[in-house]
Formats: sequence, C-alpha cells, structure tokens
Amino acid sequence: MGLLTIDLNALAENYRMLQSMAGDGCEVGAVVKAQSYGLGAEKVSQALYNQGCRTFFIAKAHEIESLQGLPDDARTIVMNGYDPDHASIYAEHEMIPVLGSLYEVEAYKAHQDLSRKPCFFKFCTEMNRAGMGKDEWESILNNPGLIGGLQLKGVMAHFACADEPEHPMTEEQFKTFSKIAGHFSDQYEGLERSLSNSFGIFRDDKYHFDLVRPGMCLYGLNPTPYKTENPMKRVVDLSINVIRTRLIPKDEYVGYGATYRFEKDTHVALLSAGYADGIYRSLSNKGKVFWNGIACPIRGRVSMDMIVVDLSDVPEDERPNAGDRMELIGPHQDADALAEEAGTIGYEILTALGERYERVYKD
Amino acid sequence: MGLLTIDLNALAENYRMLQSMAGDGCEVGAVVKAQSYGLGAEKVSQALYNQGCRTFFIAKAHEIESLQGLPDDARTIVMNGYDPDHASIYAEHEMIPVLGSLYEVEAYKAHQDLSRKPCFFKFCTEMNRAGMGKDEWESILNNPGLIGGLQLKGVMAHFACADEPEHPMTEEQFKTFSKIAGHFSDQYEGLERSLSNSFGIFRDDKYHFDLVRPGMCLYGLNPTPYKTENPMKRVVDLSINVIRTRLIPKDEYVGYGATYRFEKDTHVALLSAGYADGIYRSLSNKGKVFWNGIACPIRGRVSMDMIVVDLSDVPEDERPNAGDRMELIGPHQDADALAEEAGTIGYEILTALGERYERVYKD
Repeated sequence: MGLLTIDLNALAENYRMLQSMAGDGCEVGAVVKAQSYGLGAEKVSQALYNQGCRTFFIAKAHEIESLQGLPDDARTIVMNGYDPDHASIYAEHEMIPVLGSLYEVEAYKAHQDLSRKPCFFKFCTEMNRAGMGKDEWESILNNPGLIGGLQLKGVMAHFACADEPEHPMTEEQFKTFSKIAGHFSDQYEGLERSLSNSFGIFRDDKYHFDLVRPGMCLYGLNPTPYKTENPMKRVVDLSINVIRTRLIPKDEYVGYGATYRFEKDTHVALLSAGYADGIYRSLSNKGKVFWNGIACPIRGRVSMDMIVVDLSDVPEDERPNAGDRMELIGPHQDADALAEEAGTIGYEILTALGERYERVYKD
Repeated sequence: MGLLTIDLNALAENYRMLQSMAGDGCEVGAVVKAQSYGLGAEKVSQALYNQGCRTFFIAKAHEIESLQGLPDDARTIVMNGYDPDHASIYAEHEMIPVLGSLYEVEAYKAHQDLSRKPCFFKFCTEMNRAGMGKDEWESILNNPGLIGGLQLKGVMAHFACADEPEHPMTEEQFKTFSKIAGHFSDQYEGLERSLSNSFGIFRDDKYHFDLVRPGMCLYGLNPTPYKTENPMKRVVDLSINVIRTRLIPKDEYVGYGATYRFEKDTHVALLSAGYADGIYRSLSNKGKVFWNGIACPIRGRVSMDMIVVDLSDVPEDERPNAGDRMELIGPHQDADALAEEAGTIGYEILTALGERYERVYKD
C-alpha cells in the first residue's frame, strides 16, 4: 500500500509559468501520453484545460480514450504517426496525426474522409528516430503534388540532446528545422511550427516558434538539469505504508539472495511496495526513503511487493510504526533524485508508478 | 502499439504439471498478485480455477477486486498481512490474512467479526523480511492465550535463496519451518503448512508440505535457472509494431543523447513501444528484438514510446515494413532472456508489461 498524491495546483502553476515564458505569440500545448507520464491523463488534462491549454499531445491513437472528458475546443495531436489500422479510431474521434514518412502521407491521403482533416508533418533532424528524412521532405518540396489535397496545419521536429548544455546538435537541429519549416510556410499559409519539448523551452526563446510541447517539466521534473535548482513545482508525492518494524541481529541477512548483511543489530521497517509498484529492482541496496527528513537506506533486494529500509539514523523514540507512511517521493527526494539512484531518468520513475497505490488528486 | 498474447492453454498446462508434481497430499494454489505478474488476474485466475485451483494468493487486500469473478468455493489469501485500515475490505469480501507480527495478531483479534474468520500465520526464517520472528512465535507457543479465539488455519514461511542450487540457507529454512510448523500443528488440528514458491517446488519434494504457492513458473518463467532448459510452457508473447524503416547514413547517430553512432549505412526499424510500455531504458544499446528469427539489436536509447532496431542481419528482400510486428518476447527470446539483457529478472519484465498493448487471451 502507498499513497500517491498528484498536486493539480502545482501542475497548474507549472503550466502558467510556461505560458509566461512562451509569451503571446506562442501556444503552450501539453504532452499527456502514457497517462500523462503515469499521473493520470484524465485529471491532468482537465486541470490543464482549466488553465487555458487547448492542444494535447499523445503518442498512440488509442490513448485518445484517456482524454474523453475534454470539451470540443481542445484538440489532440497523435505523435507516433498514422497507422492505417487505426483509421476507425480516427473516424470516431477528432485527432490530428503527425505524419512521419511518405508511407504515412500516402496512407492518410488514401483514406477519403480522413484526408480532408488536418494533419501535421514531422521532420527527422539528426535524431534518426521518427519523422521524414531529408530525401522525403525534399521530394515533397520539389513535388507538392505528393501531398496535394492534404490539410497541412503544422510541422514539427524533436530535439535529441537539448538536456545537455552546449551540445552542438541542438543548434544544428534548430537551423535545419527553421529552414525546412520556412520552405513549407511559404507554401502553406498559417502553418504552425513546433520544435521544443521541455528542455528546448528552457534552452532558448528562439526555439519556441508557434507551439511548444512541454511534458516532463509540467509534471515537476527538472528541465534544467545542468543547473542546481529545479524551476518547477513538485507535482508528485509518494509515501509507502510500514507493514512492521523489526530488529535484525548482527551478522544476519535480509531479502532474496541474502545480498545484505547487517554489521550490527539494526532496526528496520518493512514497507508495502516493490518493483510491481515501480520501485525498480535496481534500487536494491541503493535507494532510500525518508522519515521525518531522515534518510533510511533500502537494504537487500527490492521484492515484488516489499522493501526493507534501515532505521539506524532515526532516534529511538521517533521510529515509525506499522501503518505509518514513509516518503519515497516528496520534499526530501524528488523523482529525479530517485531516478539517479536507480540509474535512470525521472521520466521512467513516473511512467512506472503502479496501479496499486491509493491516488489522491489535490486541487 | 504492440500485441501482447497470453496463452491460457499454456498456463493451464503449467498448472497441471505442478499438480502432478505435488501429488495427492498437496494442494497447488496460485500467486495472482500484481495482476498475476502483469498478465491480468481476472482471466488468469478464471483459467486456473477451471483447472481445479481453489486457493489464490494476493499481496494486498484491495487486489481482491481483480478476483471478483471467481466462484464462492475459491479462497483468497492476503500475503502482505492484516492492516486495520483495510477492515472494511475484509468485512466485504471473504479473505484470509497472513498475519506476520504480534501487532497484526492483536489488531485482527481486536476486530470482533473478523477475529472469528480464518487466518494464516507467517514465520520469518532467515529472510528477515515479512513474518513473525523467533521471539514472536516463541511468545505464542509459550502463551497460547495470545492468539486465543483465532481460527488459525495455516502457517507459512518463504524461501530466500531457493533459486540458487546448494545454497545452505534453503535447507536451514526448511528445518526451521518444519520445527515451528510441528509445534503449531500439535496445538491446531488440520493446520495447513505452506513453504514453497516456484523455486521450492522444483527443489525438493519434501519442501511441498500441504500447500504450494507457485507464481512465476505458472506464467512461464524458469523455476530451474541452474539448468539449461525451462520445464514450463511459455505463456507470454509480445510483438511490437513497426512505425517505419529508414536508412541511416554512416557516421550518423540515433536517439536521445546521440549515444549510438553507425559505422556503416544501416537499415533500421522504428518500433512503437518504449519504457512506458515496460521496455526498460536499461535495454538501451543492449536488448534486441527478432524478425523471422533474426536478432535485430536495439540502437541508441530506449525512448518513452519508441525504440530503433538494427536490420543489418536481415536479408534485403525480407526486411519488415511499416505495420509489421517484430518479436520482443516469443519463441526466440523469452521474458527471462530479455530480463538478463536488461540486468534484472523475468518477474520485473512481466510486472512492467504496459497497459498500452492490445491484449489477446488465447484459450
């Protein structure tokens, strides 16, 4: 058991901060794919809508199900592209696909009804992941008939290294995107240009263009990892229930595989969550939780439903009891910090937040 | 997108194999916590019920919700113990708590209605995780009044190292459990004794006692990792959709952080699943998928919703196209093998299987 608290006021404050950074000429959308990075897309998107957000980005077409509560003046953009197998989902819902290849352009054009609805294009600039390559966009520019009839509303690209300060690829990608977007803007009036994810927004105002796509920073992760301080409000708190405490005698082991041996008699707490709840097994003998601000290291392996933490540094009369909740994510350890211990990034911590926690939305 | 296939026939076959190993004197229960290790507790428990399974183990009280379809002659045992905060769930459903401390015994006794219903005890033997310690079980044996009135139906302990052949702790735990269980059996007629998880079942018949609790091996993971061959049928297949293919020129990079540089012009496929779908980020530049039995290594970092795989070893005229599905878990790579690449265990692969796949249950 555990209590996962999502602070919708902090989320709203983060969104307003981005609005003020983006200024009047730039729309601030929101990336709400993967259940808003694990936080719950329905509640998150509603809260963002209330702050004025009208453009929501998902990765996969069927994720539209999680946004059904949004009013009609909100739009949804599907970033992983158009798959003809999903034509029926597109027919049923208003969604804008981000076409990322000539194959997708052809498939979308071939669908009589859909081809009259808006679409975006994505260009692949240096990242070699999603999006049209140079050969593809040049084909289109040289032969506009290839996309004849399509309602092209916007163009996108995606930064590969914007989290690393001074990485030369970021400025290169900006230049390439500016050039291609310029060519398309000449041909398509009112075209929306979108380049920046969270990192890009904080990197440079010139990267903002017409539409920015923050995700991680909305949810409180740090979009400026090269600076000490996180400019965003923390949105997620997670505390885990104590099942029991016990005194483990000197020289005994704990957990599967007996990987940790206690060098002295040690008070520990057994907590009711494990890797099935997103507490990565890589935190075995590494991560920690907090009690009254005091760090309590994880001892032994993380199990599927339990972890054991060391209470040595907690004064005897302040030790937690069965039923108390210890902080895994909160004021003393945010998702970024926990991720570092687990050898990953805050995103992967959030998207793994389990279904077994009690969830409370603060608003 | 991806297709997750759960083979309920293979699951049934695995259960029947365990029944035949356990023999007449031993009941084979099933651990269905964490949504049956990610496979879906409702369908899995129903399929096991149809094979004669009548005892289902969950970790946390509210997981009972996933078992609501089971007939009345099935019983549910809650392994993470009794939390007084969950009294209302216990009052509403027939569930047997595994009491793991004197604190829990007191709390359960204190509830007038619950205290008349059956319970199990768990003893902590060497693992120092859940369960009553020596001081606690000795208190009870010396002073049976401590548990006076409780309907003690069974006793349990849990192996710490049964996956490691010849680990001395396993035999030690067996001896300790036998002794304590013997003392309690003297006082409580018809007491059920349960020690073995999947590993224990395969380790030695004498570890079976009256009730075994397989989990991982039911779901096709290997309960005999020290042998080459997995005696279980594979239950899970997972294949991921190709979004597009592309030719990446020599010396270019792929993905976030530009962590992989291609040494030659290389055909790759972009697949529509990432770490939000349980493809751990630790598989970056490490894991692989299969196409027609040919290994295609993951290049660059695993993203939240995408991976890129190298098609170099696939003959030109056999390359996959957009819309095809490549094998992530299947005949060429089971969950255990994928786990090894990710630096973890098969359990953590299964429990992380995302909600975004299309799920098909074969029966």
